[in-house]
Amino acid sequence: MTQPCDMLVFGGTGDLALHKLLPALYHLHRDGRLHPQLRILAIARNPLDAQQYRALAERHCRAQVARADFTNEAWTGFAARLDYFVMDVSQSADFGRLARHLGPADDRGRVYYLAIAPRLFEDIARHLQIAGLAGPQARIVLEKPIGHSLESALAINAAIGAVFDERQVFRIDHYLGKETVQNLMALRFANALFEPVWRAGHIDHVQISVCETLGVENRGSYYDHAGAMRDMVQNHLLQLLCLVAMEAPVRFDADAVRNEKVKILEALKPISGLDVQDKTVRGQYGAGKIGGQEVPAYYFEKNVDNDSDTETFVAVQAEIDNWRWAGVPFYLRTGKRLARKYSEIVIQFKPVPHRLFNGGEANRLLIRLQPEERISLQLMAKNPGKGMRLEPVELDLNLAQAFTQRRWDAYERLLLDVIEGDSTLFMRRDEVEAAWRWVDPILEGWHEYYQSPRNYPAGSTGPEQAHSLLELQGREWND
Amino acid sequence: MTQPCDMLVFGGTGDLALHKLLPALYHLHRDGRLHPQLRILAIARNPLDAQQYRALAERHCRAQVARADFTNEAWTGFAARLDYFVMDVSQSADFGRLARHLGPADDRGRVYYLAIAPRLFEDIARHLQIAGLAGPQARIVLEKPIGHSLESALAINAAIGAVFDERQVFRIDHYLGKETVQNLMALRFANALFEPVWRAGHIDHVQISVCETLGVENRGSYYDHAGAMRDMVQNHLLQLLCLVAMEAPVRFDADAVRNEKVKILEALKPISGLDVQDKTVRGQYGAGKIGGQEVPAYYFEKNVDNDSDTETFVAVQAEIDNWRWAGVPFYLRTGKRLARKYSEIVIQFKPVPHRLFNGGEANRLLIRLQPEERISLQLMAKNPGKGMRLEPVELDLNLAQAFTQRRWDAYERLLLDVIEGDSTLFMRRDEVEAAWRWVDPILEGWHEYYQSPRNYPAGSTGPEQAHSLLELQGREWND
Repeated sequence: MTQPCDMLVFGGTGDLALHKLLPALYHLHRDGRLHPQLRILAIARNPLDAQQYRALAERHCRAQVARADFTNEAWTGFAARLDYFVMDVSQSADFGRLARHLGPADDRGRVYYLAIAPRLFEDIARHLQIAGLAGPQARIVLEKPIGHSLESALAINAAIGAVFDERQVFRIDHYLGKETVQNLMALRFANALFEPVWRAGHIDHVQISVCETLGVENRGSYYDHAGAMRDMVQNHLLQLLCLVAMEAPVRFDADAVRNEKVKILEALKPISGLDVQDKTVRGQYGAGKIGGQEVPAYYFEKNVDNDSDTETFVAVQAEIDNWRWAGVPFYLRTGKRLARKYSEIVIQFKPVPHRLFNGGEANRLLIRLQPEERISLQLMAKNPGKGMRLEPVELDLNLAQAFTQRRWDAYERLLLDVIEGDSTLFMRRDEVEAAWRWVDPILEGWHEYYQSPRNYPAGSTGPEQAHSLLELQGREWND
Repeated sequence: MTQPCDMLVFGGTGDLALHKLLPALYHLHRDGRLHPQLRILAIARNPLDAQQYRALAERHCRAQVARADFTNEAWTGFAARLDYFVMDVSQSADFGRLARHLGPADDRGRVYYLAIAPRLFEDIARHLQIAGLAGPQARIVLEKPIGHSLESALAINAAIGAVFDERQVFRIDHYLGKETVQNLMALRFANALFEPVWRAGHIDHVQISVCETLGVENRGSYYDHAGAMRDMVQNHLLQLLCLVAMEAPVRFDADAVRNEKVKILEALKPISGLDVQDKTVRGQYGAGKIGGQEVPAYYFEKNVDNDSDTETFVAVQAEIDNWRWAGVPFYLRTGKRLARKYSEIVIQFKPVPHRLFNGGEANRLLIRLQPEERISLQLMAKNPGKGMRLEPVELDLNLAQAFTQRRWDAYERLLLDVIEGDSTLFMRRDEVEAAWRWVDPILEGWHEYYQSPRNYPAGSTGPEQAHSLLELQGREWND
């Protein structure tokens, strides 16, 4: 049971709030995880009253929550927590109204969830402070992206940091709330079997792939200025890389874990100048077919420039210059409008040093985050009968089957962490900045050497060059 | 396809021949594995003609072979290979008759399978030699036990060795023909993942259990003089121990593999004198229930002395004094009339050196030989939801499901190896002797200190003391 708390959702009528945050809060309510005194205040400019907002929220929750989990009784209880407040976040005066609406905090926690455009972060923080809403009990949750470059990230972090202590700031990356991602930590640090081989001497390379079938959808105006490197690699993919590569923390708490992650980000070998030609591949989808449906080229999407050279696909060969990982490539890959939707981490071990039997491949550990949550270890076994012919077999762990209770959505887990003040699974300021420090020179290299994105047809596995990147080193993507 | 060959089965009317060898040869014939010129000659004293023997063999094969695998066409072809010869193996003259019956060997192989009491081994070898049947093309297959002590094993090996080169001698241990046992070698030497942790630094202990529900059945007169140590530990369990513990051989061939196994047997820490009280447990079953059926005490079994102090159960804490295994106990356990029938090897890893999360156990690799063939790796995973609570989960590989073709019986594999002259999976002379060299002092210690077997009820998990053996060291059997 959490503490009494006011949860304020800025951008209360937006997609994130209606599709993710409110359903997650509903589940937490229904499971008895929320303190009876926890209130939820959705905030937006749309002129609705509380009753209208509750109707809107109910419609979305009914659509998002499994039928068996949605009961009228639970909804009635949840709706009683839910209020709506109309304001313009650019108006300082509106924050005074907000403060009066909320009343005194007493010992209640205050959570400000900024499900809203990042350019508004600084203003909101400042206005909260002026209105006396940024006391030590307050917490602020920031959605990615934190900036679009190191410089802009530093500015945002500085502005937020002028109002809130770092312990009050929760930079959310919903990938870290996924069960399988947390299982990666359990796998590494609760199993003595893997640690001795989890290093350069035994691992040939690592692949991290986040492949989407969707295009830019309604996000064209944002995405066309961001691109896949800023939208995905700078946060999600580098976070996964950190969890694969980090040393064991001394404790499983926010600072110990994040200290280790920062060390990895700081150890990333810089890629700059001409290196970008050898170690990165940009792509942009052309017209093609996804699931039998014709889909348009990226530059025909809504709110996208029709001579855009924004990348919708990135492949990078990252390297970590430390004792454990020197010489082991970490291949990162993400893209839109690819053939299949899946996210996975592949740990490719080295082959046996001396072959005794015919056939056989090197061991491989697959951690699948999407669409199914699965850990699978590929071993070699003997083919039955005469002789010692080897065949790959999979030792398989389907997490959904192993644990039959309903899977928490990442946002449920992370919202509860915010309410409880546990920032272990959130990005610390120096993490965000270290990630930009590695990403910025790549973006500059692309610009400097006019590296235009390679075309790939929608529904393919990305540009040819992404395959060559590995093939030239005698490797291949796990497609 | 094998070479042309005469396969002579001494003890042709015995249980082993009728239940195991002929069905195995039938399967090899049906699968087209036998050379068209391969003949099978069953030999015994019973005055049958070939037609009568074929009828006897057919009845047993029909009972042993799966209905779908037994066809009249295949049987007719197999029966045409099958002949029967009446003789008394104690009569030298009968071997002259046998030689005439067989005719000249030319370039045919000759395999003598001694499915017969070991006290007859020496005579048969000598008579074969006198009759000119022990040429360089001949191979002799010996069933366990090879002797009942080091001294008697040395004598048998010397007598056999006076007639046959070591390369002609095939000491069979059908455990080595089991798919899962061979998979243990694949697991260890075809998977780079395990080798680095397959040693004292990472493994807490190893358990090898061969548990039977049967009693002595018709073997009372043999068993009451042998006991579980000679019948099971000296051969099967020590062979499994060797495969778990040996270093990687330089090649997968007979001498390279057996060199490594002998090194393990020679590195076994001796258990003698008073050590037997701390490191071994003897048991003998009393009356009890197996599967709801009342069964009598061992000393009431047929052909068993009614004040017998033969052990029907043994537990031993073995240790291997070498660089890789120093300090790691190998707990061996075998017994009759136990609660369940199963054979398994448990590799118990050490716990993680530093605990980050709540709960969690050490990793464990289970290699199940019987009743199902299965490899299972117990890992810790995160329990879904809030917090990092760990739960054990099994990464499972059911070999019968992974490879759907019919499983070879161990004897099929091993008979084919004999016919092809591949002795990799057979025990070399020095292996048998090294095993006795470790077993003898235990037998003597029991005698010297009057260590009578502890009683355990049929249908239990063995004597209490076998559990204490591990409990005193903070461990427990994987029951």
